[in-house]
Amino acid sequence: MKRPTMADIARRAGVTKGAVSFALNGKPGVSEATRSRILAIAEEVGWQPNSAARALSDGRAGAFGLVIDRPAPSLGVEPFFMQLISGIQAELSRGGVALLFTLAEDVQAQVAVYREWWASHRVDGVFLVDVHIGDPRIAALEELQLPAVVIGSPAASGRLPAVWNDERDGVRLAVEHLAGLGHRSVARVSGPAELLHTRQRNAAFDAVTAEFGLTATTVEADYTGELGAAATLGLLDSADPPTAILYDNDLMAVSGLSAAQQRGVRVPADVSILAWDDSPLCEVIRPGLTALRRDIADYGAQAARRLGRLVAGGEADDLQVAGPLLIRRGSTAALGPATD
Amino acid sequence: MKRPTMADIARRAGVTKGAVSFALNGKPGVSEATRSRILAIAEEVGWQPNSAARALSDGRAGAFGLVIDRPAPSLGVEPFFMQLISGIQAELSRGGVALLFTLAEDVQAQVAVYREWWASHRVDGVFLVDVHIGDPRIAALEELQLPAVVIGSPAASGRLPAVWNDERDGVRLAVEHLAGLGHRSVARVSGPAELLHTRQRNAAFDAVTAEFGLTATTVEADYTGELGAAATLGLLDSADPPTAILYDNDLMAVSGLSAAQQRGVRVPADVSILAWDDSPLCEVIRPGLTALRRDIADYGAQAARRLGRLVAGGEADDLQVAGPLLIRRGSTAALGPATD
Repeated sequence: MKRPTMADIARRAGVTKGAVSFALNGKPGVSEATRSRILAIAEEVGWQPNSAARALSDGRAGAFGLVIDRPAPSLGVEPFFMQLISGIQAELSRGGVALLFTLAEDVQAQVAVYREWWASHRVDGVFLVDVHIGDPRIAALEELQLPAVVIGSPAASGRLPAVWNDERDGVRLAVEHLAGLGHRSVARVSGPAELLHTRQRNAAFDAVTAEFGLTATTVEADYTGELGAAATLGLLDSADPPTAILYDNDLMAVSGLSAAQQRGVRVPADVSILAWDDSPLCEVIRPGLTALRRDIADYGAQAARRLGRLVAGGEADDLQVAGPLLIRRGSTAALGPATD
Repeated sequence: MKRPTMADIARRAGVTKGAVSFALNGKPGVSEATRSRILAIAEEVGWQPNSAARALSDGRAGAFGLVIDRPAPSLGVEPFFMQLISGIQAELSRGGVALLFTLAEDVQAQVAVYREWWASHRVDGVFLVDVHIGDPRIAALEELQLPAVVIGSPAASGRLPAVWNDERDGVRLAVEHLAGLGHRSVARVSGPAELLHTRQRNAAFDAVTAEFGLTATTVEADYTGELGAAATLGLLDSADPPTAILYDNDLMAVSGLSAAQQRGVRVPADVSILAWDDSPLCEVIRPGLTALRRDIADYGAQAARRLGRLVAGGEADDLQVAGPLLIRRGSTAALGPATD
């Protein structure tokens, strides 16, 4: 059985290709009995309209695009993108829309991909992730009039609709948790400062720690284990080391935990550790890492739903998704005399 | 600037749409000077041939497909798939071929996706990963005559070409390493037994440990931290616990390490631990995990190259890629009196 064609259906039904075409396209010219028989055979042989022909006739590619610019090694470790894709996918598959996916080296390469996909009618719309400060992709997509949904803050999404979570919610949960445990000096190891959500977390961390009267420091890193460990050792070696550290991803948190333990610093007796986002990694490590958990698949599904609406010619406004939960595990504890 | 059309080019060039069409399609009917001017304008406005029109005229979708059936949470943790995709992508982007990517719940759902993509001319060929014993996808793809490359063993790829690595190479490296350190009783915590490469590792582990005269046990798990820890504790609690454990992925190895340490078992003084495949996680944990490392991106690139050849109407035979390397870190050590 090769790819089924209208000719195959015509042969099996004992009618002309023209009759099959009329029947499958819902046009008059064949009897109801013949139409039913043809539709039954088409179903049986697994015939599908040619996506290219359909695309030409209705002007739709039937595909949405996603380009990610992080390096593959760090991508593989963080569950964020696979969960996001799985949520996008669950929504798209209902509408028979495919996901075109690629990795690009930097923002300029991403813009080139979006431009090419759109110009060649490969996609009807795209998702935008990891928005940078002054991100050139926003202006480029606006100029192209390519339907797009930003997965990230509306503060930098220009006229594009944003599906976003308020970074302040996570910061507040984490800081409240630590302040409640009696910590007075806390630190954060951040992702790259050119990412908008890093800046937003920086500002929120300063504001919320000030509100609670805590001493606070943020050290910039890049989501890798190497810089996560280096930042941690820098903090522990400082004149006035913090008693709790919040990390912007799970890999840096695990790396920081390992670096601290190797230095003979006990977690959580000497220093508490929190990870953002939660992952299976946070569960298997000892002590388990207290972490901020978001429903990332839902985030993807919401973005896909909004993009579908835009592509269909509708309107889409910004949508703020639910804030994270704090999952308490063994890596955070009350400040006090060592109990270990 | 909206999506550039032939009409836009005609307007800017001061010619008819027909002239633009002749010029862009390399047909006679316009002077060389006009053709040059039209091509320059097309380039300037970023015009691209409509992928649907091109697909109808040359019968090619210009896209390859990849469907993965593992649950998203475990996918996100293992770097394998993102590295594979990045290698596939690097190769496809040279030829202007796009990657259609989706997650499906099980093998039957995957077959349905492949069938639909092929019938609707969405893809010209597909990749097949995580081959199961008696995998129904092989027969389905053969029946569909859909060009496909199996990323996995030719032992189960039917008539489809396979890009594969010999699981025995990794097993041999690991066992030789442990035997060289004086270990006499070794264990392995495996992935799901329905995966062909798990069975191949099982057989190779039995054969190579027998060759070295070692006592060997394999415990089946499922790549999750939960079963990785349970299997580890089962082994440590057995009448004759092994002195070294090899894990079929990094997450189970980390989980096993944590479970052992929490039980007061020292790594590597009491038990050595090895992970397969290597990942950033193996580097950040303490002790660092000795691990088997493969060039997974190259694996993807090779598979993409072969699929390109098949789709172009050429032949593609099986290709065995280079074996893994053993990366030595702190989690394996010579058996002997405790030095800790």
